[in-house]
Amino acid sequence: MSTYKAPLTDIRFALYDVLGAEALFAQLGYTDATRDILDAVLDEAARFAETVLAPLNGVGDEVGSTFDKSTGEVTTPPGFKAAYGQFVEGGWTGLTASPDFGGQGLPHTIGVPLNELVNAANLAWGNFPLLSHGAVEALKQHGQDWQREVFLKPLVDGRWTGTMCLTEPHCGTDLGLLKTRAEPNEDGSYAITGTKIFITAGEHDLTDNIVHLVLARLPDAPAGAKGISLFVTPKFKVARDGSVGERNTLRCGSIEHKMGIKGSVTCVMNFDGAQGYLVGQPHKGLQAMFTMMNTARLGVGLQGIGLSERAYQNALAYARDRLQTRSLAGAKFPDKPADPIIVHPDVRRMLLTVKSLVEGSRLLALHAGTLIDVANHSADAAERERADTLVSFLTPISKACQTEWGIENTYHALQCFGGHGYIHEHGMEQLARDARITTLYEGTTGIQALDLMGRKTASTQGAGLKLFLAQVEAFIGANENNPAVAEFIAPLREKAAEWAGLTRSILQRAAQDPEEIGAASHDYLFYSGYVVLAYWWARSVAAADASSHGEAFKQAKLETARFYFARILPRTLAHAAAIESGAAPLMAMAAERFGD
Amino acid sequence: MSTYKAPLTDIRFALYDVLGAEALFAQLGYTDATRDILDAVLDEAARFAETVLAPLNGVGDEVGSTFDKSTGEVTTPPGFKAAYGQFVEGGWTGLTASPDFGGQGLPHTIGVPLNELVNAANLAWGNFPLLSHGAVEALKQHGQDWQREVFLKPLVDGRWTGTMCLTEPHCGTDLGLLKTRAEPNEDGSYAITGTKIFITAGEHDLTDNIVHLVLARLPDAPAGAKGISLFVTPKFKVARDGSVGERNTLRCGSIEHKMGIKGSVTCVMNFDGAQGYLVGQPHKGLQAMFTMMNTARLGVGLQGIGLSERAYQNALAYARDRLQTRSLAGAKFPDKPADPIIVHPDVRRMLLTVKSLVEGSRLLALHAGTLIDVANHSADAAERERADTLVSFLTPISKACQTEWGIENTYHALQCFGGHGYIHEHGMEQLARDARITTLYEGTTGIQALDLMGRKTASTQGAGLKLFLAQVEAFIGANENNPAVAEFIAPLREKAAEWAGLTRSILQRAAQDPEEIGAASHDYLFYSGYVVLAYWWARSVAAADASSHGEAFKQAKLETARFYFARILPRTLAHAAAIESGAAPLMAMAAERFGD
Repeated sequence: MSTYKAPLTDIRFALYDVLGAEALFAQLGYTDATRDILDAVLDEAARFAETVLAPLNGVGDEVGSTFDKSTGEVTTPPGFKAAYGQFVEGGWTGLTASPDFGGQGLPHTIGVPLNELVNAANLAWGNFPLLSHGAVEALKQHGQDWQREVFLKPLVDGRWTGTMCLTEPHCGTDLGLLKTRAEPNEDGSYAITGTKIFITAGEHDLTDNIVHLVLARLPDAPAGAKGISLFVTPKFKVARDGSVGERNTLRCGSIEHKMGIKGSVTCVMNFDGAQGYLVGQPHKGLQAMFTMMNTARLGVGLQGIGLSERAYQNALAYARDRLQTRSLAGAKFPDKPADPIIVHPDVRRMLLTVKSLVEGSRLLALHAGTLIDVANHSADAAERERADTLVSFLTPISKACQTEWGIENTYHALQCFGGHGYIHEHGMEQLARDARITTLYEGTTGIQALDLMGRKTASTQGAGLKLFLAQVEAFIGANENNPAVAEFIAPLREKAAEWAGLTRSILQRAAQDPEEIGAASHDYLFYSGYVVLAYWWARSVAAADASSHGEAFKQAKLETARFYFARILPRTLAHAAAIESGAAPLMAMAAERFGD
Repeated sequence: MSTYKAPLTDIRFALYDVLGAEALFAQLGYTDATRDILDAVLDEAARFAETVLAPLNGVGDEVGSTFDKSTGEVTTPPGFKAAYGQFVEGGWTGLTASPDFGGQGLPHTIGVPLNELVNAANLAWGNFPLLSHGAVEALKQHGQDWQREVFLKPLVDGRWTGTMCLTEPHCGTDLGLLKTRAEPNEDGSYAITGTKIFITAGEHDLTDNIVHLVLARLPDAPAGAKGISLFVTPKFKVARDGSVGERNTLRCGSIEHKMGIKGSVTCVMNFDGAQGYLVGQPHKGLQAMFTMMNTARLGVGLQGIGLSERAYQNALAYARDRLQTRSLAGAKFPDKPADPIIVHPDVRRMLLTVKSLVEGSRLLALHAGTLIDVANHSADAAERERADTLVSFLTPISKACQTEWGIENTYHALQCFGGHGYIHEHGMEQLARDARITTLYEGTTGIQALDLMGRKTASTQGAGLKLFLAQVEAFIGANENNPAVAEFIAPLREKAAEWAGLTRSILQRAAQDPEEIGAASHDYLFYSGYVVLAYWWARSVAAADASSHGEAFKQAKLETARFYFARILPRTLAHAAAIESGAAPLMAMAAERFGD
């Protein structure tokens, strides 16, 4: 099975040296978020991830969550329930939640490495607490006072977990088609009836109650996406005074057999007149949904990073250990029967690809975390707005690129093992199978790309991009004469200008033909992701140079950045060319000519 | 579960219209390989693949091959044995084998679509007969007369199957390290002792005997790769008169639990003084091995095509069927609740990527098949030599690109299904898991890349490339004024020149630093693959235009070619930039700086 060690050195470097998190948290009024406290949190999170969760990753895959058709109950894999108990006891579920609801009130940013570690250690397990955050956000922002009072504390302290019940058999992306009905009861509650599918953690044995946030239609609902409302619908009924009553008329009908994340449970949920309460305004459910979704999307992005980091550690250990053939430049370890495979350029190419994508992604994700803290806690309204615009822009990039790179990275890491990577016992194939879900759930990569290109770029005239490019310009301005990063300034400037130019070009073409948005979206998303990482690599080198880290650390950052600029950033050339080729090569073919 | 229909229209187009196979076969003296015969073979192969093999693909994955530790026996999944019986009865195992050994003597080329169909229908099943071809080739070229007499007929008629026993626990790529011993017996045979791993079809219940071709060291063997000999070592002993005797002292010790191809069996084989006979010269086993390996590599390349084709068919059907949201350009099917997702540019991007890579790869593979026929059967020695050089050059490109594209294509096809693609019942995730082995076995992609860059390019001063480029130049010369392909001529000429230039540049740098070979190899391989496919796409358009196919067919070829040149060929830009960046970004980092 694969092993895992939390990459605390790099996380601390990103947090403190690159992002200046200490000063930022102080400025935002997080008086408890001192470096001592944060370091202790990271140490303890690492211990929990390494010693409690990581050892359960294999059994989660092998045993899986199981379903009893006769009772509708789900049993999680051996050890999952005990680990969840420790997680709750350690206060992890409420780490960044407001003290108003029993949380510890630490910055959102510090939840980012926690989630990276949890996902790396045990992605399937991590899905049980994951969606509670979205439920908390939705109730906090849209719930009535009594709903916040009654549901938030148990969700924050982990006694209950939450779900997002959106998808139905005939609709996932297009929620306007959904059919689940909500009929008003006399007591002000609603009777929810319908079938939801793909409900992560829809049923399990970890907690006494499960809080489903369900999208449904009121009787007078307009057709389509404008007629969807959100309802909080617990497994066991909850009265307005918080007392828990009888079993609600909802039930898990079956669970899916999946390619991976077998320890996680994916439920068909049948609602049969189940008692629910309206959250937010009638017919405004989609807006409330997006509140949950954005949090969840950034969370799924972290799954890509976690899996990549774990895959990297195991591939690196194997590449240093496995003796096979000699270096083409002559034996490097003549006293051994062969050289370790890390001497080979192509093995290094795979390892450095993963390393540069993981460490770069970590900054993208942590930066998004700091933006959420600024958007929620800055004293300056304009700054809050800017941070919100920028994190909205970066969310689809973060979710899609980090998960697609997660697939690429687990691919490379498995490949380093040769045929051994394909065998279950080494654990690399599990990482690859687990990674495969991340580009599908919480909006496929295609949906993220459309979100970036349409909602976050075309609809805002590139407001998010402008803010990001201003940050790039500021870095370039401040470092133009910094010899530590001199070699990266010109390529970064060139890519920033090209990015702006490509954006203008797409928007101009889209004014003539709306298909240009969809045609450019995928390549625009990846183009953006690679330039974002180039910026973070340049900043990493500058920050390492200015830090108190040792020479070996600084040298590794510099060499990884050089690899990134030489070997990964050129992927933008292919994406730019694809973008510039426009919609015609995609749209010309009539549907019937695609094949028989 | 996924469905499958043999793509006979496209195979026939490639074979007859693009490659002119009828005339070629006639010229090579294959008097029986008329179009009537070939068409009947293809029809029958399609029927067998669609109706016998394809329905067993799911059960192969779900039940898998199973191992009985007490007896050392392997039971194949339900239906596999009966299907194998039909395969043998239909004469398929000897389709292209020499009539001298009971084969039907058809051109090697016609085995290519047969293998594509078998692999598409049931990759795991296809692995049982696959390696017999390699064993036949090795025995035919290197075996003694009595060995050919005794072993070839049962292998060709399918009564027995063959294996390749190369890998040991501590060595796969680096066979020079292998430890299995061969001690001479008094009767001229050898006693083989050692452990081999990853032996595909090492044990099974499909045939009465299994013929293992085993690499081992003679007592006086020099160290390393120059001390390896090849032995034929059957499961049941075979005397020089062909009579089958007692059970040999070799046994399956366990089978691997794999990510996919679960119906196929991957064995640990323990040889305990097993009786074997030397094949070829002492210490020349590696040369004999390469005979097996090259055949097997092209065969594995076809696995990538087969899986891609099946994935495409299912993704296309889903994309036409699944209703979800409206086209950004306005409703295309206003009478339906939503548009089918094939209206969306990004879904089309995924489908066209698969379509263009599959149809292009099919030509690369079939072309390699025709080169083998020319190399074996041309009356002109110089032409035989040229064909051999060219197919040697194309083999690593074909194996590595077709399998890597197989992974990419099954990825896209699964992604078209959204979350449903991750669920076992749709069958898409099995295709993705099955595809993952193909870039690992018979030499990883990294090994293919080194083979192309080192053995097939640097060592031959680019002889294979020159032959391929001459073919490109000839096409350009003949079509410069052909309006049907006018738009493709300039980009093809430009890429051909760039390919030659990149090759020169790498070889120059490699003269200073041998690491440049390994550093360029991966990107050079893919650069080459994309240009090869650009050539086949241009030729396809020209051939379609000149053919008797209908307008819709011609239009589809033209539109797919346009997509390929606009959206796929630009990947060469990233590969060229990576090549030009040289070895330094890969080699600078000391092994200890890669991580903790």
